[in-house]
Amino acid sequence: MKELSVNHLLGIKYINENDINLIFETADHFKEVINRPIKKVPSLRDITIANIFFENSTRTKLSFELAQKRLSADVINFAASSSSVTKGETLVDTVNNILSMKVDMVVMRHASPGAAVFLSKNVKASIVNAGDGAHEHPTQALLDAYTIREKLGDVSGKKVVIVGDILHSRVALSNIYSLQKLGAEVRVCGPKTLIPKYIEALGVKVEPNLRKALEWCDVANMLRVQNERLDISYFPSTREYAMQYGLDKKLLDSLNKEIVIMHPGPINRGVEITSDVADSKQSVILNQVENGVAIRMAVIYLLASKIK
Amino acid sequence: MKELSVNHLLGIKYINENDINLIFETADHFKEVINRPIKKVPSLRDITIANIFFENSTRTKLSFELAQKRLSADVINFAASSSSVTKGETLVDTVNNILSMKVDMVVMRHASPGAAVFLSKNVKASIVNAGDGAHEHPTQALLDAYTIREKLGDVSGKKVVIVGDILHSRVALSNIYSLQKLGAEVRVCGPKTLIPKYIEALGVKVEPNLRKALEWCDVANMLRVQNERLDISYFPSTREYAMQYGLDKKLLDSLNKEIVIMHPGPINRGVEITSDVADSKQSVILNQVENGVAIRMAVIYLLASKIK
Amino acid sequence: MKELSVNHLLGIKYINENDINLIFETADHFKEVINRPIKKVPSLRDITIANIFFENSTRTKLSFELAQKRLSADVINFAASSSSVTKGETLVDTVNNILSMKVDMVVMRHASPGAAVFLSKNVKASIVNAGDGAHEHPTQALLDAYTIREKLGDVSGKKVVIVGDILHSRVALSNIYSLQKLGAEVRVCGPKTLIPKYIEALGVKVEPNLRKALEWCDVANMLRVQNERLDISYFPSTREYAMQYGLDKKLLDSLNKEIVIMHPGPINRGVEITSDVADSKQSVILNQVENGVAIRMAVIYLLASKIK
Repeated sequence: MKELSVNHLLGIKYINENDINLIFETADHFKEVINRPIKKVPSLRDITIANIFFENSTRTKLSFELAQKRLSADVINFAASSSSVTKGETLVDTVNNILSMKVDMVVMRHASPGAAVFLSKNVKASIVNAGDGAHEHPTQALLDAYTIREKLGDVSGKKVVIVGDILHSRVALSNIYSLQKLGAEVRVCGPKTLIPKYIEALGVKVEPNLRKALEWCDVANMLRVQNERLDISYFPSTREYAMQYGLDKKLLDSLNKEIVIMHPGPINRGVEITSDVADSKQSVILNQVENGVAIRMAVIYLLASKIK
Repeated sequence: MKELSVNHLLGIKYINENDINLIFETADHFKEVINRPIKKVPSLRDITIANIFFENSTRTKLSFELAQKRLSADVINFAASSSSVTKGETLVDTVNNILSMKVDMVVMRHASPGAAVFLSKNVKASIVNAGDGAHEHPTQALLDAYTIREKLGDVSGKKVVIVGDILHSRVALSNIYSLQKLGAEVRVCGPKTLIPKYIEALGVKVEPNLRKALEWCDVANMLRVQNERLDISYFPSTREYAMQYGLDKKLLDSLNKEIVIMHPGPINRGVEITSDVADSKQSVILNQVENGVAIRMAVIYLLASKIK
Repeated sequence: MKELSVNHLLGIKYINENDINLIFETADHFKEVINRPIKKVPSLRDITIANIFFENSTRTKLSFELAQKRLSADVINFAASSSSVTKGETLVDTVNNILSMKVDMVVMRHASPGAAVFLSKNVKASIVNAGDGAHEHPTQALLDAYTIREKLGDVSGKKVVIVGDILHSRVALSNIYSLQKLGAEVRVCGPKTLIPKYIEALGVKVEPNLRKALEWCDVANMLRVQNERLDISYFPSTREYAMQYGLDKKLLDSLNKEIVIMHPGPINRGVEITSDVADSKQSVILNQVENGVAIRMAVIYLLASKIK
């Protein structure tokens, strides 16, 4: 049986094209499962997974939990607010304590870039990074690439533009890695102050003009705008942001081709994209959410098979 | 097989007497189940239910969760405080995202009257209203009527008075609808400022005097007083409220018959009713709680059978 | 079959040596279970347990939940913050409501000493005390004694010193009871202001000097320091506390024997003990956590067998 080259999913940076394709093939199977009347498989009855979220997250946490339950794993949830971490305990102590209760896998979201890698070196369990600061969010990148593959047949050779606040996004970097590993070309588009300096070193061109970016691409991934970050970029309000980087139906229809519209959610309707764009046929936003469960089932299943 | 006339439980307003009786007959069966040593049935193994609570609720949420687990459904919980809704996402987006994860049924509590009806028109899932503002709380009304039927043999022909803050109650309106549909006569009793103007248009008489109301009725449903609402009604304190609308053992025993005492909980002992009334033989308050699980199992079971 | 002499676990004060040994033998079995690939047993499929935590607790709550899930019990969680208790409902009403939903066992943490005993007299369910103020925390004491038995072969005849804030600890009193019932000798060591006056009446000597205490003992249980309590004891900071009552590797190695180091967690590294002590071979801190699940499975299993 094929298996992953890694024991953890810490970031797309650390896995290779074969890993990604294996995850996709496995997700194909699970996507079929979750569309059957009986959406569960008994695969991981003997696995206990701890979801340790040091930052709030609605859809990612829900998606992981559903993936785990549909694999019949035992799930325990650990939220930072109700945790000993606030009492001054270290991250390693917290996780080691949980592992001593015989937990096999840890899914963790943490505010610090590198938290997942650090953990994988210091505790004995399979680690899945569910977002470490503005660093990586590998399952999101996998579900994004999987959705492109599903919609366009293949990722290789496709042109993808990521639009918005690249600097503070945990989605952008993982997407760049995964799309490039699968042979896509990636550009970014956004306010200069929200583009990290290292972006061109990754082989990613910056296209400041949204229209030009859209004319070039096959797929536009419209990142969420976070109000509290806007002042950094000298936009007095989301309205001004929307005028320069927002996508409405008029702009979308003025392109001489049908591009695919993605968004990691939650959408600020009328800011990054208007409602008619979000709900248009070109939007695959809800497919992304659906595929998220299948991708996470695949990742967890493949990592669990390396434990046993 | 008999089935409900509706695909959602949005309010008692939208169901008919046959629906209510079908729910009661089904609840009879489940009540027997939860009183057996093994309190579970495998009926809904293939159903995933999301409990989406935009407002806090202890007993309603717990009761729904137990009902779902005893039907062997998969349950995911989504609390408003930890949700994207605080990030500005719309209700429809939030729910659509959850549904894209292949959820079959949504149980929702929301602060806005009409939220459940709105949702049922905009998303593809079976919706159960677990309270929408001061509008409807249909499962509470069903469990109340079911408890009267259990205690008095029948609801038809019975006289029920609802006492307290009718205006802000999500329990009162649903109770009026269900009791009237089942052939009971309903009156309300409470401070003038806490009686909604539309009440008489529903065929409900107002009896301002508690003693007279109790002398008339077979059943008194004593609503919970919310301190923050008392100033609206010109009561300087719960003490003053209790003097006019509180039920103590002396008053109860002075009636020349045994009326049934109900309370939706949580009780303010010494305010709406005194402890000796709450714990008396005439009180069916804990029966209401027990019947709540059976009623919710019945509602979920019947709606789920319409999905498949 | 052997059974417990009690129907609740309210405190170590209320159980006898036979009870403790029966719990240990049962925990031996469950410890073997949770170290197997399939960590679950179907023993309590027909039992519903409510975890009612009126105070925050990470590891205790997680440990109980895992214990319950591995016994295949149905679990409902009730946290104080999301509860009706904040609406003014009494403890007995809250718990009676939960019990009316057909719950068989209640695991409760509460801020008030005696809350568990009070509850056991007023509701019909098996009660497990998961900590009542600074009074008892019986499962912690059981897992501590079990860990000593595992490490040293027996508890009888061993010398155990409890170091730190004895006055505010919910761990100290339960430990004193359990260790004495099993035949160990117990001393305490800590700032005078943090030693309760009743301690000598329990037959426990006070040793104010840490070095002398360590030279005397076989086992040192280093209690957690709570910053907010330090000013009461006239220590201006944790640094000053650590200088007098903290255990570092140098002090540990200077003893002419290998003592066992315990800590109920979460550790303030560098305060009660330094990192090299916490991670040393003499430390059984993570064994305590692991044994906690086995001990709680045993307690719940034995109490459940008295319900049926």
